[in-house]
Amino acid sequence: MSGATNSGKLLGVGVGPGDPELMTLKAARALGEADVVAHFAKTGNASHSRTIAAQHLPAGVTELPLLYPVTTELPKCSDGYRDTIRDFYDEAATKIAAQLSAGRVVAVICEGDPLFYGSYMHLHARLASRFPTEIVAGVTGMSGCWSAAGIPIAQGDDIFTVLPATLPEDELARHLHDTAAAVVMKVGRHLPKLRRALQTSGRLPRAIYIERGTMADAKIIPLALKPDDDAPYFAVVLVPGWEERP
Amino acid sequence: MSGATNSGKLLGVGVGPGDPELMTLKAARALGEADVVAHFAKTGNASHSRTIAAQHLPAGVTELPLLYPVTTELPKCSDGYRDTIRDFYDEAATKIAAQLSAGRVVAVICEGDPLFYGSYMHLHARLASRFPTEIVAGVTGMSGCWSAAGIPIAQGDDIFTVLPATLPEDELARHLHDTAAAVVMKVGRHLPKLRRALQTSGRLPRAIYIERGTMADAKIIPLALKPDDDAPYFAVVLVPGWEERP
Repeated sequence: MSGATNSGKLLGVGVGPGDPELMTLKAARALGEADVVAHFAKTGNASHSRTIAAQHLPAGVTELPLLYPVTTELPKCSDGYRDTIRDFYDEAATKIAAQLSAGRVVAVICEGDPLFYGSYMHLHARLASRFPTEIVAGVTGMSGCWSAAGIPIAQGDDIFTVLPATLPEDELARHLHDTAAAVVMKVGRHLPKLRRALQTSGRLPRAIYIERGTMADAKIIPLALKPDDDAPYFAVVLVPGWEERP
Repeated sequence: MSGATNSGKLLGVGVGPGDPELMTLKAARALGEADVVAHFAKTGNASHSRTIAAQHLPAGVTELPLLYPVTTELPKCSDGYRDTIRDFYDEAATKIAAQLSAGRVVAVICEGDPLFYGSYMHLHARLASRFPTEIVAGVTGMSGCWSAAGIPIAQGDDIFTVLPATLPEDELARHLHDTAAAVVMKVGRHLPKLRRALQTSGRLPRAIYIERGTMADAKIIPLALKPDDDAPYFAVVLVPGWEERP
C-alpha cells in the first residue's frame, strides 16, 4: 500500500466479560469513533461481543461480521482443521486490510481482553506490522467470575496459574499442586478428570465451580457440590490462593 | 449492629491500570453514587487510585484516606511487621464498618482489579460477611502492560502463570520452564536473578521488560537490551506464549 497518505487504524477493543457496564470508557469512545466494527461469531449465532457493545455502536456504522467456519466434522489436531482455521483468519485479515488501506478506522470488538486468549490475536498477528494499531485493554472473563463470586483470588507473593482443563490428568494435578491460586478454563466434559486432579493435588476443598459467571443467572457453588453429570465448555473452576492472611 | 434497618453497602471498585479511560462504565457510575470514597496511599504520597478516579468523584463526597503505616524499619518476615500491617487493616476495616453501619455506601477504589493482588482484599476479608458487598471488576495492571506493548500473551491451550520475582532462582527457572506464558511482577532488585532464571529456562529471548506500562512515558524493551543496573519495584517482565500459530 505504498503511497497511501491516509492509512486507517486497527483497534482491538476489549468489551469485558459480559455485563455491558464492564466496558471501559475508552472502549465506548473507540466504538463511537470507528468507521467499521468487526466481530467474530459462530455461523447462525449472534456475536457475544456485539451483544455486549450494542448500545455503543454508532447509528449506521458499517459492520463486518467474521463468521467462524463450521469445523465440527474435523478433528482439532488434524491438518484439515488447522488449514480451515488458518484460511479463515487469512480471509478475515484480508477483508480488514482492505478497509484499513481505504483509510478507515476498524474496531474489532472482543469479549474480555483482546490479547488474552482472544480470537482478535489472529488478526493482530497478521495486521499489526502493516497498519497503525491500538489495543484497548478489557476486563477479563476470569476477573468477571471471581468478582461476581466475591472471591479474593491471589495476594502478595502468590503464584497464580491459568490452566486449560484439556491437559492430561497428571499434568493438571502437578500444576494445581505447584501454584497458590488457579483458574481452570474449558471445563466442559473434562470435569471428572479435573475433579480427580484437584483431589490428587489436595486442592478440591477450596475449588469453586462457576457457570455463566458474569450473567444474572450465574451458578457459583463449591465444586464438591457439583455433580459430574454435565458442565458447559465455558464453565470455569477457581482455586483461590491467599491461604495465609495477616 | 442488630436492629439496623438501613445497612450500607461496601463496594470494591477497580479503577484499572492507570489510564483514567480504562475505568469501566460501572466504576464511574459506582463512584457517582457513593457516599464515602476510601483509598489506600503511602503516608506523604497521593493515592494512585484516587488520581486515576479523580474526575469521577462527586463534588463534596466524603473521602477516607487509608494511610499505610511506615514499616521500613521492620523486616517483612518479622512478627512486628505482620502485627503492624494486621493492626492497620483492622483499624481501616473498623472505620469503614462505622460508615456502613450508619447506612452509607462506601466505595473502596483500587488500582487494577480489586480481588487480584489488591489491598482491598484485606478489607473484604474483614467486612464482606457482615455487610452487603459488591465488587466492580477492573482491568488489571498486567492487561494494561501487554496491551500498551501490543504483545499477544496467551492463546488456545496455553498455560499462563503470574510469578513474583521474589521467588528463589531455581523456583523461578522451574516455573518459567513449565508455562507457555508468564508475567513476572515485583522485578526491582531481583532483575539479575530473574535474568539468570530466564536464561536457564530458555525463555530469555522472548522476555520483554516494561516500566510504567500504562503511562505515557512507558519503557518497553526486550529484556536482553535492559542492563541489570536498576529496575523499579513495579517493573514487570512478560514472556509471551502462543509460539505455535495457525
